[in-house]
Amino acid sequence: MPVSVPQGFRLAAVHAGIKHNPQKLDLSLVVSDRPATAAGVYTQNLVFAAPVKLDRARTPCEQIRAVVINSGNANACTGERGDRDAARMAELAAATCDAEPEQALVLSTGMIGEYLPMDRISAGIAAAAQKLADDEAALVSAAQGMMTTDTRHKLVGCRLKLSPGEVQLTGMAKGAAMIGPRMATMLGLVLTDAAMAPAAAQQALAAAVEDSFNCISVDGHMSTNDTVLLVANGASGVSLTGADLAQFQRALGEVCGELARAIAADGEGATHLVVIDVRGCATRQAAHRIAKTIAESPLVKTAVAGADPNWGRIVSAAGYSSVPFDPARVSLEVNGITLYQAGAPAAFDAAAVSQSIRAQYETHIVIRFSEGEATVRFWTTDLTAEYVRLNADYHT
Amino acid sequence: MPVSVPQGFRLAAVHAGIKHNPQKLDLSLVVSDRPATAAGVYTQNLVFAAPVKLDRARTPCEQIRAVVINSGNANACTGERGDRDAARMAELAAATCDAEPEQALVLSTGMIGEYLPMDRISAGIAAAAQKLADDEAALVSAAQGMMTTDTRHKLVGCRLKLSPGEVQLTGMAKGAAMIGPRMATMLGLVLTDAAMAPAAAQQALAAAVEDSFNCISVDGHMSTNDTVLLVANGASGVSLTGADLAQFQRALGEVCGELARAIAADGEGATHLVVIDVRGCATRQAAHRIAKTIAESPLVKTAVAGADPNWGRIVSAAGYSSVPFDPARVSLEVNGITLYQAGAPAAFDAAAVSQSIRAQYETHIVIRFSEGEATVRFWTTDLTAEYVRLNADYHT
Repeated sequence: MPVSVPQGFRLAAVHAGIKHNPQKLDLSLVVSDRPATAAGVYTQNLVFAAPVKLDRARTPCEQIRAVVINSGNANACTGERGDRDAARMAELAAATCDAEPEQALVLSTGMIGEYLPMDRISAGIAAAAQKLADDEAALVSAAQGMMTTDTRHKLVGCRLKLSPGEVQLTGMAKGAAMIGPRMATMLGLVLTDAAMAPAAAQQALAAAVEDSFNCISVDGHMSTNDTVLLVANGASGVSLTGADLAQFQRALGEVCGELARAIAADGEGATHLVVIDVRGCATRQAAHRIAKTIAESPLVKTAVAGADPNWGRIVSAAGYSSVPFDPARVSLEVNGITLYQAGAPAAFDAAAVSQSIRAQYETHIVIRFSEGEATVRFWTTDLTAEYVRLNADYHT
Repeated sequence: MPVSVPQGFRLAAVHAGIKHNPQKLDLSLVVSDRPATAAGVYTQNLVFAAPVKLDRARTPCEQIRAVVINSGNANACTGERGDRDAARMAELAAATCDAEPEQALVLSTGMIGEYLPMDRISAGIAAAAQKLADDEAALVSAAQGMMTTDTRHKLVGCRLKLSPGEVQLTGMAKGAAMIGPRMATMLGLVLTDAAMAPAAAQQALAAAVEDSFNCISVDGHMSTNDTVLLVANGASGVSLTGADLAQFQRALGEVCGELARAIAADGEGATHLVVIDVRGCATRQAAHRIAKTIAESPLVKTAVAGADPNWGRIVSAAGYSSVPFDPARVSLEVNGITLYQAGAPAAFDAAAVSQSIRAQYETHIVIRFSEGEATVRFWTTDLTAEYVRLNADYHT
């Protein structure tokens, strides 16, 4: 998909000094040349970070001019001082484009429980404002500035030809769940030059998140900072209604889906992306709960890491998901090979299944029930010793 | 606590050939010289094993003469053939003491999804019947015969002086949760020579399990075979009523608590036993849910493995437990040192906390809320690369 900056946006990233490594970008600034509609979807964690509190109160709206993002410090569990720091970040970002303090949003990710170095943040925002640009290099920098332990930046773009004209949709995201040492957060930011009403933007984003970012898990640990924003500035002159809105909704779903998949594929220490298809459930909620329970079982995840077609772990994980089903009508496939059929072991070539898991980065699990028609697709990673090493590594 | 065989019981274990290693005991037989009251508590997994189905239908009752236990094969996900095999095991065990087929119970643990080698099981039961004894060596053998990846057997005994006389209470258990490669199950068996009515036995066991086996987790994966049995044969001539029953109940709680703690301490790959005290909750259920969420977070568990006083992971895990609380009134201690106070970071010596975690096998987490008076104590392990290695290791 073509990755370019939607009209009317400019971006930049700098090393502000929040991260120790001077090679790492840690502050990104996104500015819209006109007030943009913004919608947000946030962590459900009761312990949520200051920037989540700020953005949640400000979205949906149609007045946003700037989004400032820092990595290396989550500004979470920082009490009232954290709230003041987040508000000050927004104020500084807004000032770079002569906007009012409440016209900016803030995203933070990194260590929990440390106060932001506001002097560095302030200097970083000023430096980024001098570098704003609308080319692909600026886009890549902005996506890199939000990274923590991600091994690669995540950018997805999409160009839509709608009846009144063309619009660009470009999304960036960083690391799934709470994946790094003392790190928090998955963040997503989707920019478009389409014009959208706040309610429509909020509805479109919520629907897109449901099947994308809400269908991934690296370690099941919900962060304090999870945020996905959609910022639509209307610079294309294209307003979204009717069939165009529906087409945009599908594209937004695809962009979010690609970003979510990229986050799961880049989970800490991962050697496999695991795609779990749950089919034949009474409701989507039931299918989602079963998928999430399987995705978060350390035994399922280590089995994939070891290329072990250990189907008992998958079926028994479904069994403790709290979703009612008839165990005698469950079937399971791994990479297209049936391992379990109608509640009893199937005869299969274990070495062949093991080999197919070992041969490819993606492992595909399909588990079928006979309770209804609802389905869900969920993404997770395997669990490796490298994940443990990364997260047990302590530097005082 | 004194470990001895309660009156009227005899035990033995043999290598029946279910496990490949001929050094490993894999079949244990317990016989009571008279019909005993038996109560059971079982896995809540919807996908439950054949022996769970059999025992659940037979307890509580007052007719049990024999309990047969095998390790190496869980007889789970084995369909109708699995049910027939479990019934046949019970029949063979009952026959060794001239009892009726329905006077025996069955416990199985090991690989999921393979049929039992019934010829070996049958020969093993016959061989064990020839070796039955009531000394400590027989008790230790029986506890060893139920082990899978446990590194040591788990036996706890307790002698109670009650008003009508003395009774002995002796429990054995094996490995927590689903901890081994393709292994299922925690199993517990508590024997007593006290006399108890089935309803009283069931009630006492259910209460004891609530604060012991239901308060541990190694990897959060609920097995298909979890079972705890209480078998009371009355051979002491002491019937439990009133204050004696209450005293027995407390002792049973202690025996189950010690066994549960031993299971958690022997979790696969564990280098730390983590004791989590959750205090100040509105209900015990709320406290239990918070404790379990913390206990099962891979990020909390890897932090303990790395001796990292990473309190953000603990507080944020509580935040996604679905239990409502006021985040501004949360405090946290690790090994007696306050890390988080009233919703904000406390000043503490990180190196000292890290050193205290590194210096001892047990890590003690206390998290306090201000929602009420309910408390719970929960046990878990850290998560190490060794756990991953053990569970990713695949041998076709």
